[in-house]
Amino acid sequence: MSNIDIKSVNTIRTLSADGIEKAKSGHPGLPLGSAPIAYELFAHHMKHNPKNPGWKNRDRFILSAGHGSMLLYSLFHLFGYGDLSLEDLKSFRQLDSKTPGHPEYGHTIGVEATTGPLGAGMGMAVGMAMAEAHMESVFNKDGFDIVDHYTYVLGGDGCMMEGISSEAFSLAGTLGLSKLIVFYDSNGISIEGSTDIAFTENVVDRMKAFGFQTIEVEDGNDTAAIGKAIEEAKADKSRPSFIKINTIIGYGAGKKQGTAGVHGEPLGSEALAALKTGFGFDPEKSFDVDVDVYENFKAINEKNAKLEEEWNERFKEYASKYPQEAKDWDNYHSEINTALIDNEEFWSWDDAPAATRNISGSIINRLKDIFPNLVGGSADLSPSNKTEMKSVGYMSKDDFSGRNIHFGVREFAMTAITNGIVLHGGLRAYCATFFVFSDYTKPMARLSALMNIPTIFVFTHDSIGVGEDGPTHEPIEQLAMLRSLPNFNTFRPADARETIAAWYAAMSSKSTPTAIVLTRQNLPQLNGSGKKALNGGYIIKEASKNTPDMILIASGSEVSLAVDAAVELENDGISTRVVSMPCMDIFENQSKEYKEEVLPRAVRNRVAIEALSGFGWDKYTGLDGRVLSMNSFGASAPQDLLFKKFGFTKENVVSLAKEVFNQ
Amino acid sequence: MSNIDIKSVNTIRTLSADGIEKAKSGHPGLPLGSAPIAYELFAHHMKHNPKNPGWKNRDRFILSAGHGSMLLYSLFHLFGYGDLSLEDLKSFRQLDSKTPGHPEYGHTIGVEATTGPLGAGMGMAVGMAMAEAHMESVFNKDGFDIVDHYTYVLGGDGCMMEGISSEAFSLAGTLGLSKLIVFYDSNGISIEGSTDIAFTENVVDRMKAFGFQTIEVEDGNDTAAIGKAIEEAKADKSRPSFIKINTIIGYGAGKKQGTAGVHGEPLGSEALAALKTGFGFDPEKSFDVDVDVYENFKAINEKNAKLEEEWNERFKEYASKYPQEAKDWDNYHSEINTALIDNEEFWSWDDAPAATRNISGSIINRLKDIFPNLVGGSADLSPSNKTEMKSVGYMSKDDFSGRNIHFGVREFAMTAITNGIVLHGGLRAYCATFFVFSDYTKPMARLSALMNIPTIFVFTHDSIGVGEDGPTHEPIEQLAMLRSLPNFNTFRPADARETIAAWYAAMSSKSTPTAIVLTRQNLPQLNGSGKKALNGGYIIKEASKNTPDMILIASGSEVSLAVDAAVELENDGISTRVVSMPCMDIFENQSKEYKEEVLPRAVRNRVAIEALSGFGWDKYTGLDGRVLSMNSFGASAPQDLLFKKFGFTKENVVSLAKEVFNQ
Repeated sequence: MSNIDIKSVNTIRTLSADGIEKAKSGHPGLPLGSAPIAYELFAHHMKHNPKNPGWKNRDRFILSAGHGSMLLYSLFHLFGYGDLSLEDLKSFRQLDSKTPGHPEYGHTIGVEATTGPLGAGMGMAVGMAMAEAHMESVFNKDGFDIVDHYTYVLGGDGCMMEGISSEAFSLAGTLGLSKLIVFYDSNGISIEGSTDIAFTENVVDRMKAFGFQTIEVEDGNDTAAIGKAIEEAKADKSRPSFIKINTIIGYGAGKKQGTAGVHGEPLGSEALAALKTGFGFDPEKSFDVDVDVYENFKAINEKNAKLEEEWNERFKEYASKYPQEAKDWDNYHSEINTALIDNEEFWSWDDAPAATRNISGSIINRLKDIFPNLVGGSADLSPSNKTEMKSVGYMSKDDFSGRNIHFGVREFAMTAITNGIVLHGGLRAYCATFFVFSDYTKPMARLSALMNIPTIFVFTHDSIGVGEDGPTHEPIEQLAMLRSLPNFNTFRPADARETIAAWYAAMSSKSTPTAIVLTRQNLPQLNGSGKKALNGGYIIKEASKNTPDMILIASGSEVSLAVDAAVELENDGISTRVVSMPCMDIFENQSKEYKEEVLPRAVRNRVAIEALSGFGWDKYTGLDGRVLSMNSFGASAPQDLLFKKFGFTKENVVSLAKEVFNQ
Repeated sequence: MSNIDIKSVNTIRTLSADGIEKAKSGHPGLPLGSAPIAYELFAHHMKHNPKNPGWKNRDRFILSAGHGSMLLYSLFHLFGYGDLSLEDLKSFRQLDSKTPGHPEYGHTIGVEATTGPLGAGMGMAVGMAMAEAHMESVFNKDGFDIVDHYTYVLGGDGCMMEGISSEAFSLAGTLGLSKLIVFYDSNGISIEGSTDIAFTENVVDRMKAFGFQTIEVEDGNDTAAIGKAIEEAKADKSRPSFIKINTIIGYGAGKKQGTAGVHGEPLGSEALAALKTGFGFDPEKSFDVDVDVYENFKAINEKNAKLEEEWNERFKEYASKYPQEAKDWDNYHSEINTALIDNEEFWSWDDAPAATRNISGSIINRLKDIFPNLVGGSADLSPSNKTEMKSVGYMSKDDFSGRNIHFGVREFAMTAITNGIVLHGGLRAYCATFFVFSDYTKPMARLSALMNIPTIFVFTHDSIGVGEDGPTHEPIEQLAMLRSLPNFNTFRPADARETIAAWYAAMSSKSTPTAIVLTRQNLPQLNGSGKKALNGGYIIKEASKNTPDMILIASGSEVSLAVDAAVELENDGISTRVVSMPCMDIFENQSKEYKEEVLPRAVRNRVAIEALSGFGWDKYTGLDGRVLSMNSFGASAPQDLLFKKFGFTKENVVSLAKEVFNQ
């Protein structure tokens, strides 16, 4: 390593330690230990242009160990990403700064994915590498490797302990994602102490078992060895690569080096001074960057900028030779053209009763033809989730042009992978499982909401309507779980037109993920459903009087029940409106006036009906209304018997409504 | 295999297929493929006494691939567990039957754990084996192996794909749980087709990397080889064992054998007839069991019953030689004696402000001395979660007598393992992580609620009060997620006495899990808090008038804010009551009268305050009240600035209350 390389690495270290010290909060252990890895990669191997961080063929880098955020911020400052300034580094973890505690996608330029929940970055990296492989197979032509980049991810012991990484890497190995290169920052220390206390497995052997090329670097300060490992990783054209690098946590931090104490707290003045002195920096100075260091990064950038220029040239040639493909390329990278689904054909459906999962399956196949950049799949439940796009194949090791994905029984990684595909750019993506297993997707669904990306979730078997499989497979509290998540739209459509609306909303969403929650059992097609479902909630059956005596509110399979009950209530002289509420989240965003129109404050006789937990429904029923819902887990029996057992019958709705009316 | 053994295995197969056929629903693939494994184990290796399924030193068996439930039910019928009759098998998956779609703990005698969500059983098995190892180290004496049993678990490809099993097995390997024996029913088929499409890893090598002894059985019908493998597994005294057995899914089911189609649907008349004919059964008969088969199982039971008799004898001797230990044994296996914590000492606390996580840490250490059978730990966050029990050590490979557990960064498996420890019997257990990562625990928290077991969850860093770590680490919707879960108590205490109440409730709970949600930051000690918190919600500050003008409702860190605001509102002439609501779930179970007393229907001016999602609070505020809560994710900054930024200030509460009052 040249002197300037060494100085650059140590500048990353001191900047990181200074940022954390000033914030009085943060994690110096990882930046100090793995600065050489990050520097070697960003300076000498990665194809990136900080002046255009959105360059489509850039190599991607994810810091899966997101608590090491100062490592990224220091790098971004030195490389000039988003003009991140020394002032920004000094505002680490402060209100409204560009440098929050963990890296946030869309918040700090250069951050490819929000990380912090350990292992998540590993899953997203696998998704990015899958997206790259698919885009390669779609767009590359002889002599024109328009798509040709690597996905790098760096994680620590925590990332390797989390099950999500095993799930994701097992799939990565199966698919032979050779453009995926994983760095394992192995420092042998976790928060509770040496990793020996809970983690004595042979990680390298595990990765080998998954089908990775594995490479070990003995000394994390040996950038030559790290560089060599990266070249070896790139040279393997059939397997993803795993580079285990032995590092020392908090390297250079005096007595704290190598201890759990350096993981998640500022170094303190003594260790910070030792760090600076040890690396030949002035311990009296903070946020100190020598001019020659800045010049070093400038020179690297100039060299790298040429890579993009060359690519731009190549793309121009490509566009002239393959005009249709170039047009497709633009389409892939543009926002969804909603005009394409704003027509009768897309919204049409016949009147036969159908399970909304089957309807969704048909809609997916309409979307397949309209949007060639839609990819997706299920966690081994495609025949049940009805998520297969017909005759467009599956991604496989031998052929990545397929648009369906076999995720295997791995809901957790599936969700992270799907997020990674969306983050990569160029593609829209959905994933699917049984609704009850949305539990397994929750941590990564949250991340999609936090990152403001429009990942789509297809959840079938949406209530006790699951029937015989019983309570382990019957969702109860899952709607409340997802509805309470900020920036997340949960649709539970009542029939075909509402299912189409759900997909319409999902596909046209720019920055909000959408879950579409679907029945196993057949539902009738309703009068009055349709595009109004895009409002989240709407009057599906008006009452006989202008001001109704009663409002019934329901979603999904219970809307038809509410309509039937309303007819009977009207017969009995109680003027009853029915509100269908396929998506509370979107309804909440409507104007005050619209909400008042649908649910007038003055009408207090209200009953909500949903065959899952009633948690959250009181918002619409108030202190005077009632909620007919599940207050326990379900049971194993044919679904019609379960609906009866738990009181989801017309008779019961009518009787409950009358109780409310007469109270 | 003797003729009667073969006939017994095939009877298990035909009974299973008949049950599924009659139910018109179920999963025949696994029972047909792995009947020989289960029979060989239960008949010739397992230490169990069907007449006393609660025998404390029995070997445990978990069917992790829970969809294969008919395998268990057939076995249970033949062995006579719980007098499960042929009629019960004929009622498979029917309303209120003893034979639901997936095995349910506490519902069907002999079922050791509820399974169905794949991989869960693997995690619970690791927990059971840890409990066994701990109990061994506590109770066994020279010559008296009072605790000496195995934990067997059988899972398929799905269980091995799920990340939870990697997490759990990595810990099992670290701990050298030699009494854990895992059967991998490897049939190469998953729902979407051959496992090659998504799962080409070398599973055996992965398990070796985790530290398991690995054994392979070429032919799943070769019970001699299976028996030999079990003996080899038992012979390894330092490692857990993994037995991969190649089976054929749906073995014997005519053309359907070996296909994905046999996984999750009844065989249909043709394949069912082929199955029976092939095994020498009369295809015209259903649920047909020959007398000699029953006699075979009876003979096995008689032999096995002796094992328990011998153990009973041994225990008698033990009790006379070690009376204190025998008394402890009884205490370990009794319900918690709440009298022990019904005293002033346990409920006492001084008045200094403190973070509830620190208070909880102290309470855990009080409980440690009172209940020697309490074990627990954190997913590598013990210093932050404050969950360490002082000076009672950690469980380790070399010494299992420790009561603390290093779970590693494995929240998902941690929860399953903790459930497994509780299911084993003899111990009470807690697990811990940051509240935001309760997301990772959710699927298994659900299972604890479904199984009616009192697992305890300690979740610290409970709101935007997390501060600098930012939105990835700030829980928002997690309270709603847990509150909506049936049979699950979520406490968010406001001060020391409420924290003590939460722990009191958690420890005295018999069949409901409890989450205790705690602050990172200091909170003041409140006047009026205390045992009333056991009601879930209570009046912590009475208003000046008998009928208040206004009710403020809050939990946790926001209760003191509500009290401060109430003082100001009173000064401004608005008579204000404050209700502290540490546990909505328990409050909901109070009498109508009590709820009316705390929250009179007539008082409609209500404001709820909670620095997380407001989802679910409208239940108490109604259509006329307001909820001050988080409607977005949090941010990275010092916590006091975040509370201000998001409006959790006295001024804002007062102003909102006045808005409501004046509307």
